[in-house]
Amino acid sequence: MKKEDFKTPLELRLSIAKGEWDQPTSGMLGDYQQANLAVVPKDQAYDFLLFCVRNPKSCPLLAVSEVGDPVIHFQGSEINVCTMLPRYRMWKEGEYVGETLDLTEYWQDDSVAFLLGCSHTFDAPLNRAGIPVSAEAPAVYYSNIPCQSVGAIQGNMAVSMRPVAADKVALATTITARYPSGHGAPVHIGDPALIGIDTLENPDFGVFGGVPEGYVPVFWACGVTPQAVLPNSGGAYLFTHFAGHMLVLDQTVDEVAASLL
Amino acid sequence: MKKEDFKTPLELRLSIAKGEWDQPTSGMLGDYQQANLAVVPKDQAYDFLLFCVRNPKSCPLLAVSEVGDPVIHFQGSEINVCTMLPRYRMWKEGEYVGETLDLTEYWQDDSVAFLLGCSHTFDAPLNRAGIPVSAEAPAVYYSNIPCQSVGAIQGNMAVSMRPVAADKVALATTITARYPSGHGAPVHIGDPALIGIDTLENPDFGVFGGVPEGYVPVFWACGVTPQAVLPNSGGAYLFTHFAGHMLVLDQTVDEVAASLL
Repeated sequence: MKKEDFKTPLELRLSIAKGEWDQPTSGMLGDYQQANLAVVPKDQAYDFLLFCVRNPKSCPLLAVSEVGDPVIHFQGSEINVCTMLPRYRMWKEGEYVGETLDLTEYWQDDSVAFLLGCSHTFDAPLNRAGIPVSAEAPAVYYSNIPCQSVGAIQGNMAVSMRPVAADKVALATTITARYPSGHGAPVHIGDPALIGIDTLENPDFGVFGGVPEGYVPVFWACGVTPQAVLPNSGGAYLFTHFAGHMLVLDQTVDEVAASLL
Repeated sequence: MKKEDFKTPLELRLSIAKGEWDQPTSGMLGDYQQANLAVVPKDQAYDFLLFCVRNPKSCPLLAVSEVGDPVIHFQGSEINVCTMLPRYRMWKEGEYVGETLDLTEYWQDDSVAFLLGCSHTFDAPLNRAGIPVSAEAPAVYYSNIPCQSVGAIQGNMAVSMRPVAADKVALATTITARYPSGHGAPVHIGDPALIGIDTLENPDFGVFGGVPEGYVPVFWACGVTPQAVLPNSGGAYLFTHFAGHMLVLDQTVDEVAASLL
């Protein structure tokens, strides 16, 4: 199947669960809310929940599972987080141990799943406002902006960068501010050095496609942040989505954003 | 001292801590963020934190203390939640045991304090937009709108009602939607019976001052909700602010709202 063949998020999730789709979800079903995933043991869940509350721009919480139950009920939908994302990453005792297409055999009785809004949330609204956003994964950097720490969960904010035409920067800011269920308004506009990024040429993740003349680099808080602060925070294990391979929900980004107003 | 004598939130908080002010904070220092308080034992803190996340309109989280530490650091301010509110309510094992002007001797090593935005947040912006709001506590009712439950923390949403001129209802809705750090947009507009309120004449709290001809009753989620759902949820104790006697923060309501965009 091709990206364009999927007409609804449910159709896509069922295909993923059957193992028929293991490719990125970036650029698919653009009006629908996509979510990042982090799964931690119950004994870390309070600290991570509080970390999300204290760092809402990096970790915009959409839903949290019951302990040990991989099925999340979100605004009328039933989501199995072990099977309905295309690809996952796994850590044990802080060590990266690899990826998988299905979390079912790794899920534990004490697992708690967190669904977090991702920046894909505002890509379609930006495009509709005449601010073109690449369907590829944006360049992502570790900044020197500290997160509000909770216990052992601490570190700096990861940020994604999109070049925006100078006369559209204010518009890009106000549009994304409408989507706190994504990452909201930018955390920085302009000179990368001011947030500890020496050069844009070598992103920590993703691809840097250049900043054309007359464009400004604009930085948003990034959903990679949990994968930066969680592995070395003392948890027995950590499962996340694989970058670009998100959960696609049945709700449009505007429905989700409006539900928070 | 009189309400008008206090020029800054810090001055007010220090007076309260010295026992010089024990009256309501409603209607005081109108541009500053006020906060409701709930203190629960650590073994209930995860469930209540998740309850707030799942019910953001009733329980808009501003800050959570470290376990056992009554001093909260909020956007550069240092707040002692045991002394800087004028009046508190206390429950033990689900039974209401009375009020106090100082929580210090009741605070426990396992206590966790939650600061929640209150509807006072949007009173000043409504007034500035030509929608007069009484400085008295509004009428508050138990609705039949269910909260999203977490474990034993469950129940219906309490709502506050303000009469709004029919031609200002849309404006009141859009203005309050800008303050998710208060209670955000209304949860209901119009017929009280549709949310389980048989008559407006007998509010569960506060004073009903009538709905004039040409006015519409407008209902917002209310900070009384935690005091409705927490006492019988199995916690060893519960401390809250006394209705109308809130914590006044150093930040304006607009600063706090903007920090969440």
